[in-house]
Amino acid sequence: MNYDSYFLHALAQLRDERRYRVFADLERIAGRYPRAIWHSPAGPRSVVIWCSNDYLAMGQHPKVIGAMVETAIRMGTGAGGTRNIAGTSHPLVELERELADLHGKEAALVFTSGYVSNQTGIATIARLMTGCTILSDALNHNSMIEGVRQSGTEKHIWRHNDLGHLEELLKQVEPQRPKLIVFESLYSMDGDVAPINGICDLAKRYDAMTYCDEVHAVGLYGSRGGGITERAGAAHRVDVIEGTLAKAFGCLGGYIAGDAALIDAVRSYAPGFIFTTALPPPICAAATTAIRHLKSSNGEREQHQRRVARTKAVLRAAELPVMPSETHIIPVLVGDPEYCKEASDLLLTEHGIYIQPINYPTVPRGTERLRITPSPHHDDDMIEALATALIDVWDRLDLPREDRALAQMSA
Amino acid sequence: MNYDSYFLHALAQLRDERRYRVFADLERIAGRYPRAIWHSPAGPRSVVIWCSNDYLAMGQHPKVIGAMVETAIRMGTGAGGTRNIAGTSHPLVELERELADLHGKEAALVFTSGYVSNQTGIATIARLMTGCTILSDALNHNSMIEGVRQSGTEKHIWRHNDLGHLEELLKQVEPQRPKLIVFESLYSMDGDVAPINGICDLAKRYDAMTYCDEVHAVGLYGSRGGGITERAGAAHRVDVIEGTLAKAFGCLGGYIAGDAALIDAVRSYAPGFIFTTALPPPICAAATTAIRHLKSSNGEREQHQRRVARTKAVLRAAELPVMPSETHIIPVLVGDPEYCKEASDLLLTEHGIYIQPINYPTVPRGTERLRITPSPHHDDDMIEALATALIDVWDRLDLPREDRALAQMSA
Repeated sequence: MNYDSYFLHALAQLRDERRYRVFADLERIAGRYPRAIWHSPAGPRSVVIWCSNDYLAMGQHPKVIGAMVETAIRMGTGAGGTRNIAGTSHPLVELERELADLHGKEAALVFTSGYVSNQTGIATIARLMTGCTILSDALNHNSMIEGVRQSGTEKHIWRHNDLGHLEELLKQVEPQRPKLIVFESLYSMDGDVAPINGICDLAKRYDAMTYCDEVHAVGLYGSRGGGITERAGAAHRVDVIEGTLAKAFGCLGGYIAGDAALIDAVRSYAPGFIFTTALPPPICAAATTAIRHLKSSNGEREQHQRRVARTKAVLRAAELPVMPSETHIIPVLVGDPEYCKEASDLLLTEHGIYIQPINYPTVPRGTERLRITPSPHHDDDMIEALATALIDVWDRLDLPREDRALAQMSA
Repeated sequence: MNYDSYFLHALAQLRDERRYRVFADLERIAGRYPRAIWHSPAGPRSVVIWCSNDYLAMGQHPKVIGAMVETAIRMGTGAGGTRNIAGTSHPLVELERELADLHGKEAALVFTSGYVSNQTGIATIARLMTGCTILSDALNHNSMIEGVRQSGTEKHIWRHNDLGHLEELLKQVEPQRPKLIVFESLYSMDGDVAPINGICDLAKRYDAMTYCDEVHAVGLYGSRGGGITERAGAAHRVDVIEGTLAKAFGCLGGYIAGDAALIDAVRSYAPGFIFTTALPPPICAAATTAIRHLKSSNGEREQHQRRVARTKAVLRAAELPVMPSETHIIPVLVGDPEYCKEASDLLLTEHGIYIQPINYPTVPRGTERLRITPSPHHDDDMIEALATALIDVWDRLDLPREDRALAQMSA
């Protein structure tokens, strides 16, 4: 049997649909963010990164790097085992305390990634509640969808951010069944925000539990960086807050925070937690440092929002099809996978600007886009250069400008 | 609804079965392995670790720490995004090249953990082969079981390491169906080794693909640390070799290595790969350094095996129930979850020796054990102290000695 043919066929399909992805080989330069080196086929070139999820460049903050370096020198590079088998390090214990405090919860549990926290977290919570029904927002991240699927429980999908539809579905569930509402606070591809208090009101009325993914918001919103739940004064109303250490906190790993019993049960039952090596102490120490810094410093958050506002204003003034977004994520509509890839390639090769194309399955077909994420370190000149480059690319590829593009999308 | 009651009930059940796990809060000390600090309820205490999976203490090797430190200072702490969205760093590209070379394969793909490599790797490979049947060893790790389950394909479980049974099952599968045999090279709780060449012979005869988990063997076996497949001269015969960076290589992360088309297809289709933040550059650089070192240095491997042999000999001479093991893993049978936990507690609190109890579900009920993993740095005095401590604990708890214990187990 020609086994290779299966894989070659699968790859050919992606190429046919213009969805085959090529990863850019990048070399970050600490202290010079958003500048980086792109190892292009023709050799190394300097580029400006406009699409990183290290939103505040905390991964290059001297205190955060210092914590990693100091801990690596003192304790070594790895955890050496699962949490149960010699892998629970003191920096990890401290990190979990810090995270519980960040969200005002009794306890927190760290996973190797945000993906794994959702996947094994949601699956385990739902499995432990006999007869559970999950109500899941239609635009939830793949990791949440996998968590829901692996729970094996009944599920209902509510239309994205539609409280009316959520209520309709809640009404249909038998009152005595445990109900788990899973949603994100900030949807990372559109930059829109969930009506958290409205969801909590419904959860209260219909006696449901709530699970909120805050990965694109922790560190960035709320006066201590507790996310949209903190900004909305709703952290205490949400039963489980899930977050990441890999975006605004600049490291790696994910977590959930909630009541002590729930966290302890997930700790004790979740296979994706039990059977995997713990996060390395240097990563834990670096993350704790980033969280602590952003608990007491608002400077990065304020500068971030100023840069985002300016970028949006400049791109809109240039009549580029900036999609509506309430947050730091600035999607610019292309609406075609091939042009999206081509626009990204032109930006990189001709303008030294790195913005990855976002195609299906990350976003629905027909809404392919460039997703721009300004940091506090993108200055006015960079924003001007970005606008100039985008105008050039839009002209060369004859891409739709603001009115036409957004009209097409809503059609 | 009292949601907490579900979680409290689940925890009570673990306590009833004496399976409730308490994690020891440990602080590793670089350069002093296996010594560490245990943050006990009564304050910090010095202990000797006898159960780490950082088998060669490479996580404390000066070159490995140096690579992490140097890279953190130069590039920062995090990757900043998924592989597709700004997260493909130059150290990660180099790491994948190094891993492909280690196993003599065309390509390799790195995941955030070994758990994730198996889970999303097996599921994706099987899904891409229409009509696939998986043949899975009965003692495969939870991550492989989850991968098989999530593939949604037909599966057959063959009795552990039983070639006759595997052949029987292979005969029953329609010849035109794609077949994937998944197994481990070295089973981590018993320390036994798979008949890799025998499996490959059957795979050839019945035209099946092979997927071998080498997480407890890479770095430790083979003249370049390529694992049991290298030692058996079978690396080229196994289609996919899966490994970890978190055990003998002392860091974090997992990988698969194989043909270019297969690796590219998993890269393009595996949700647990696509939608998660890439490993941080400092972790990648540290892992690459460990792999390169162990490719050219046999000293650690030889010293490791000498220490293992001595530990086994001393414990057997003390008539402790050392379970049969062909490798560096030394299971000592207790056979009861409560005594197993108690033995572990006594070793820690009274002898300053840390060996985690291994209970169900990690091992079958009735085979609860202490799992001892000597490193090259466990010296003769430590081995003597271990034997003395175990004898004391065995006496105090009146645990079965060699003959009786192993007879019971095989009964």
